[in-house]
Amino acid sequence: MNIQTSLDATAESLLLPQPYLLFLGDTTERGYAKTAFGLRDWAPEKCVGEYALPGATVSAGLVSLTPAEARARGARSLLIGVANSGGVIPESWIPALVEALDAGLDIVSGMHMRLADRPELAGRAQRLGRRLIDVRHPPAGLTVGTGRKRSGQRLLTVGTDCALGKKYTALAIARAFAARGVDADFRATGQTGIMIAGGGMPMDAVVSDFEAGAAELVSPDAAPGHWDVIEGQGSLFHPAYAAVSLGLLHGSQPDVIIVCHEPGRTQVLGSPGYALPSIEDTIDLNLRLGARTNPAIRCAGVSFNTAHMDAGAATALMAAESARLGLPVADPIRGGDAFERLLDSCLA
Amino acid sequence: MNIQTSLDATAESLLLPQPYLLFLGDTTERGYAKTAFGLRDWAPEKCVGEYALPGATVSAGLVSLTPAEARARGARSLLIGVANSGGVIPESWIPALVEALDAGLDIVSGMHMRLADRPELAGRAQRLGRRLIDVRHPPAGLTVGTGRKRSGQRLLTVGTDCALGKKYTALAIARAFAARGVDADFRATGQTGIMIAGGGMPMDAVVSDFEAGAAELVSPDAAPGHWDVIEGQGSLFHPAYAAVSLGLLHGSQPDVIIVCHEPGRTQVLGSPGYALPSIEDTIDLNLRLGARTNPAIRCAGVSFNTAHMDAGAATALMAAESARLGLPVADPIRGGDAFERLLDSCLA
Repeated sequence: MNIQTSLDATAESLLLPQPYLLFLGDTTERGYAKTAFGLRDWAPEKCVGEYALPGATVSAGLVSLTPAEARARGARSLLIGVANSGGVIPESWIPALVEALDAGLDIVSGMHMRLADRPELAGRAQRLGRRLIDVRHPPAGLTVGTGRKRSGQRLLTVGTDCALGKKYTALAIARAFAARGVDADFRATGQTGIMIAGGGMPMDAVVSDFEAGAAELVSPDAAPGHWDVIEGQGSLFHPAYAAVSLGLLHGSQPDVIIVCHEPGRTQVLGSPGYALPSIEDTIDLNLRLGARTNPAIRCAGVSFNTAHMDAGAATALMAAESARLGLPVADPIRGGDAFERLLDSCLA
Repeated sequence: MNIQTSLDATAESLLLPQPYLLFLGDTTERGYAKTAFGLRDWAPEKCVGEYALPGATVSAGLVSLTPAEARARGARSLLIGVANSGGVIPESWIPALVEALDAGLDIVSGMHMRLADRPELAGRAQRLGRRLIDVRHPPAGLTVGTGRKRSGQRLLTVGTDCALGKKYTALAIARAFAARGVDADFRATGQTGIMIAGGGMPMDAVVSDFEAGAAELVSPDAAPGHWDVIEGQGSLFHPAYAAVSLGLLHGSQPDVIIVCHEPGRTQVLGSPGYALPSIEDTIDLNLRLGARTNPAIRCAGVSFNTAHMDAGAATALMAAESARLGLPVADPIRGGDAFERLLDSCLA
């Protein structure tokens, strides 16, 4: 699998300097290190090691290196692999980040606060000629969508809600396609995905007029047998984020959608009073809206996030749902025959 | 009709200093002066006069005043009422804009280029304490939508395409509501509408994550009998702009939609190969998606832009379409009984 992006040169693209040294700060809560774990799980070849401050108790299990040691092993950037509650870069991290700049590394961040808003970093980076890259911020020069049909095949993961496995599903499908010898790229549309891919487009940060156009950039023309496996965002049914989802759907022009769902979730995340849509309604609405830019769009299956279930219950539920829906239903993280059937359906 | 906005104080709102002196530049083509004509037609009480450079042949028919004269008559800003092909502020306008700043006026612009990007203007404005206001740029501090149902009534104009009368329809309905004694506000979502209203939200320039949230700000909680008449943007069927339309639809939570259409248009503007949707499909999709945040949404009628038709043909077509659709169909600019029936239907 080629897990990189090759954004069109008409927009200045977000391409990250790799490989990375993963920075874990002084983190003591595993939940804050999701980015580091995602990189370890999906792009270990892009990570030369990890670097933590005294007091940190969380590790991604990589070799511990100083910035200078990492640079000597080929690292090109220090990547902030942890979040914190405020999205702010704390004072306690600054010496380590300056050390990285001094050692010859750029810095890559997915925090809300821009790296350059810390004067200590901005001044040092400028003097040394290093780059401070905020992956939450889209590239300059984006344009409106054209709706022109592009060559190659495209798959988009969509969802009944946000935060239930659209990124992991796309990564797993891209990896499995590659294992079958299918020429495929994972296309990242959110910050962690962009770090894993080494490039992409932070779709939720794009100005709405350019949303579909930015999605068009993410998956450019390709060879007829090539698949772009595109990370979905949000949900068409989400009262806050549906604009992101529709722009991504229109611009992606998917030939195939996979609907992602977490069994047992009944309410939209963060929107009290909003019931989760059914899987059937989610399929139907995505096909209806997606047909506008690709009349051949079809749903090839459903991805369940069953991390909270035991294996027997998960397998039974997925078999029952597959029979009910008449579509493959699989948990890509569990894999197995069900996932193979879902892949067959994608490539059919 | 109160044609102002009262944006929530949680976001720094776009509220324009009024009344205006309309600036016409050195324009010789009427098509470039649409903003000035819109202000003359819909907000004459906000315009103390007009100011043109030597060589201009276009007039909005207002009294000709210098910036100093306009200031003496109460003007608070010079409003650039003309566009040009590049969206750039030409060198030839600078002396007049500086003259306005010197006379005590702020400057309001809807051009692509920011006023502050002209150093002559930025420096002068800062020294004099004047404001340079670009209505294409959204206020700071926007947040994601909540989906919370707000009090008061809302009407949103939606369309089969862009640029076919959603702003004029909303303005005409707000004016007609006021004439009937209904408490109503026109809510602006695009640059010309914002200038007419004296405030609003440039929805197409809002980051997509905040699109629905920005739409929620535009029409805040109101008294039960109050109507917000909200200017629509784009179209759910437009391959480039549907994200804007869906965020606006979800955030507006309209009780009533009016579908705007231009008879005879068969292709989406600027998107070759995209057929215009039917009026029925446009009603159906807007109701389906809009029901997510307001299950009571209904379509009260259809607005036709018949500017290119003669009166007899327009009247006959609207009567036939009204019978076919089972809904009032009217051209708000022509008014008449058909428009009264459409208003009845909105308020029913």
